[in-house]
Amino acid sequence: MSRVAYVNGRYVPHGKACVHIEDRGYQFADGVYEVVALVNGRMVDEGPHLDRLERSLRELHIAMPMSRAALQLVLRETARRNRIRSGLLYMQVTRGVARRDHPFPKTATPSIVVTARRLQPPSAAAVDAGVRVITIPDIRWERCDIKSVGLLPNVLGKQRAREAGAYEAWQVDREGAVTEGTSTNAWIVTKEGELVTRPVSNAILNGITRLTILKLAREQGLAFRERAFSVAEAKTAREAFISSATSFVLPVTQIDESVIGNGRAGSLSLRLRHAYDEHAAGSPVTA
Amino acid sequence: MSRVAYVNGRYVPHGKACVHIEDRGYQFADGVYEVVALVNGRMVDEGPHLDRLERSLRELHIAMPMSRAALQLVLRETARRNRIRSGLLYMQVTRGVARRDHPFPKTATPSIVVTARRLQPPSAAAVDAGVRVITIPDIRWERCDIKSVGLLPNVLGKQRAREAGAYEAWQVDREGAVTEGTSTNAWIVTKEGELVTRPVSNAILNGITRLTILKLAREQGLAFRERAFSVAEAKTAREAFISSATSFVLPVTQIDESVIGNGRAGSLSLRLRHAYDEHAAGSPVTA
Repeated sequence: MSRVAYVNGRYVPHGKACVHIEDRGYQFADGVYEVVALVNGRMVDEGPHLDRLERSLRELHIAMPMSRAALQLVLRETARRNRIRSGLLYMQVTRGVARRDHPFPKTATPSIVVTARRLQPPSAAAVDAGVRVITIPDIRWERCDIKSVGLLPNVLGKQRAREAGAYEAWQVDREGAVTEGTSTNAWIVTKEGELVTRPVSNAILNGITRLTILKLAREQGLAFRERAFSVAEAKTAREAFISSATSFVLPVTQIDESVIGNGRAGSLSLRLRHAYDEHAAGSPVTA
Repeated sequence: MSRVAYVNGRYVPHGKACVHIEDRGYQFADGVYEVVALVNGRMVDEGPHLDRLERSLRELHIAMPMSRAALQLVLRETARRNRIRSGLLYMQVTRGVARRDHPFPKTATPSIVVTARRLQPPSAAAVDAGVRVITIPDIRWERCDIKSVGLLPNVLGKQRAREAGAYEAWQVDREGAVTEGTSTNAWIVTKEGELVTRPVSNAILNGITRLTILKLAREQGLAFRERAFSVAEAKTAREAFISSATSFVLPVTQIDESVIGNGRAGSLSLRLRHAYDEHAAGSPVTA
């Protein structure tokens, strides 16, 4: 079965799905996106993802391309037409097509693209082995709270990770503190057993998975704190992990050349991964 | 006559010119561009623009989509098919189409789009009246030397200018120094009559028009210096102007609420505009 994409009101074969060359997403990165996991036919944290989509659009003064209810139908229909029950949904909204000029066009209609694809979760052995991250300077703009498609610095950072044989790159601010990964949030468990992740600001994306993990930690009575942490602290932490809508909770067992803990997934990381997996599998349909 | 665009090997009607939804330019701002002025059928500073295109691509490890000679033919043919002798050529090169994933894809072929359009130069009266700029914080990433399509901060800045009734926004770094406009370089003429513009670094784009103006200043024996200047210094400068491939040299007569000089185009600015106009009209064909 060939894949299907939703593009501006129509379901089209993925291979022929296209947007105009003067779509502002293409010429100006003038748009935003969301990635939502599908688990057993349900969207994980659909409501919070759509809330964040609306927030990103509001920050850029782009209108929602359709009502939220209509978008929810399109998301379901895109999953259905692609026969995907476990994988991810990708949606992108841009300011639309207009003659190239920097200021907002007066009459453009927002463009929307939705795609779906299968995704294999990592094996238990891969989770237990954990992943390696490298650290790189954070060279991004100052509005990383907006989930824009202006991802070139993230692309360059992820490529550096790959070339170093690592899974992810943690970006580091001018003060030496970790902001976040190029497509994931960053977490450590301190020597004292406290779960730590950076508080939200314009310097990071407020990950939906991040928020859910904080909620799960609270429910489980785990000690946690939202504060910045340095690369040095991370390298001597008891545990570390990353989170994202598609990685869920993924243990980090090496940062640059430093092995974390005993070099295998930490117990708190695995406990949170398990809790998140359960959350994802049972995520209520919010619509 | 309908407009024509060149897209990945074909000349197509502009209204139907499209790129795939998984072109990395659309999903990641993973591409670069150039804008070249056309004056009387000639490209202004064609060679330097193509040099910079090649440099931007090299910095991102994207291959040229075709030989330089072939690209020069495409540029000429796009101008010819659109019957444009004075206006601008726009070219955009991205890393190409690939299944969405941050790292560089192994097999993608770079995408290329070329368009042309007419552009009216401002009247002598408009040049003499000059334009107003506002000042805003520079929130962009740290590789502004790469002419990438990741222009969202520039878009937001230009929009702020428009909403303030201004033509351009000068971006200001953490030290209070002007970096550049959102699509132009920034210049002042000090009280002592010295022409000043910020030296090149990762903080600004090394404008081709900027380089030509420096060359013309040198040829005319004008005192100039490449150094950073503060907003305060700019506001009390004798003259100010902006430069770009499409604005040429455009006098600035107001910065925020401060009137520059006597509120009309300065004499050195006009002299440089005249020299640049002559350069543009007589720009030798380099190919």
